[in-house]
Amino acid sequence: MIILGIDPGLRTTGFGVIEKHGAKLRYIASGTIKTGLEGALPPRLKVILTGVSEIITTYRPTCAAIEKVFVNVNPHSTLLLGQARGAAITALVGADLDVAEYSPTQIKQAVVGTGKAAKPQVQDMVSRLLKLPGLPGTDAADALGVAICHANSQDALALIGSMAPAMQGLRMKRGRLV
Amino acid sequence: MIILGIDPGLRTTGFGVIEKHGAKLRYIASGTIKTGLEGALPPRLKVILTGVSEIITTYRPTCAAIEKVFVNVNPHSTLLLGQARGAAITALVGADLDVAEYSPTQIKQAVVGTGKAAKPQVQDMVSRLLKLPGLPGTDAADALGVAICHANSQDALALIGSMAPAMQGLRMKRGRLV
Repeated sequence: MIILGIDPGLRTTGFGVIEKHGAKLRYIASGTIKTGLEGALPPRLKVILTGVSEIITTYRPTCAAIEKVFVNVNPHSTLLLGQARGAAITALVGADLDVAEYSPTQIKQAVVGTGKAAKPQVQDMVSRLLKLPGLPGTDAADALGVAICHANSQDALALIGSMAPAMQGLRMKRGRLV
Repeated sequence: MIILGIDPGLRTTGFGVIEKHGAKLRYIASGTIKTGLEGALPPRLKVILTGVSEIITTYRPTCAAIEKVFVNVNPHSTLLLGQARGAAITALVGADLDVAEYSPTQIKQAVVGTGKAAKPQVQDMVSRLLKLPGLPGTDAADALGVAICHANSQDALALIGSMAPAMQGLRMKRGRLV
């Protein structure tokens, strides 16, 4: 299973690609798609579409996961972020990838072990979990984090599937069994 | 010139296709793309992508125009609308169409002659301008309206291009020369 994680944004969209083989995770690639600070929205969304499509062509992910975004104090920023996220999701579903969505809290919980972790902790734990030689940038770290979160969720789902009927009343919450 | 107009929305995306031949406008098609009221966001955005792509394949527009959306009183709705609009724009730019953006005021000004027109007035004027046998639905009417607005803007731009150098300091504002 090759997972493409996306941290959406209009200026900068982070991406991270990891391979999950059994319980092992292997780093494949990460980086950012930058649309620049200026210009009309349609060409900027095209940069996101082209960037995500190129990543898919290059790394052939088998599934995708994207961070949920929340409303900004500035409604105009919320609208722009929404459109950028819509472009990224459209690029993913257009390539016939299933797209899972995780909240920042779920991602921090999966990566750091607490939903209230700060960005440097996420970068540090992503680096440790994937045995990176250094710290990834914050956008790439968030994108790798959502990919790791999705990998963990798949483990939990497989576990439920393999359990005795008596245990199948368990539910997933924040990537954990409850 | 065949213009595809889009009125974006998450539940319902209106579309309208018109042909502009000189000063004449001809109706080609209009309707709505409906994503249903339920379900996860990525499959709903895929419905918008597939719908817009099918319209492009069927009617072969040479350019596109989309209504600008504004922030809702409910920030969550703003975020959803933004993502739907992002999906529609991504479908358009993915088909290599240039996408123009017009505000509701610009569209009403172009179609009805006043930026403060009500929806029934837009439906009525769209029906008259395109010689439709009846009133289009509100989403289809808005989509045809943005296509008409774009057609008018092209006339104004052509006019500027053909003018004497002394007049070229004029600018376009809301589809009109100022």
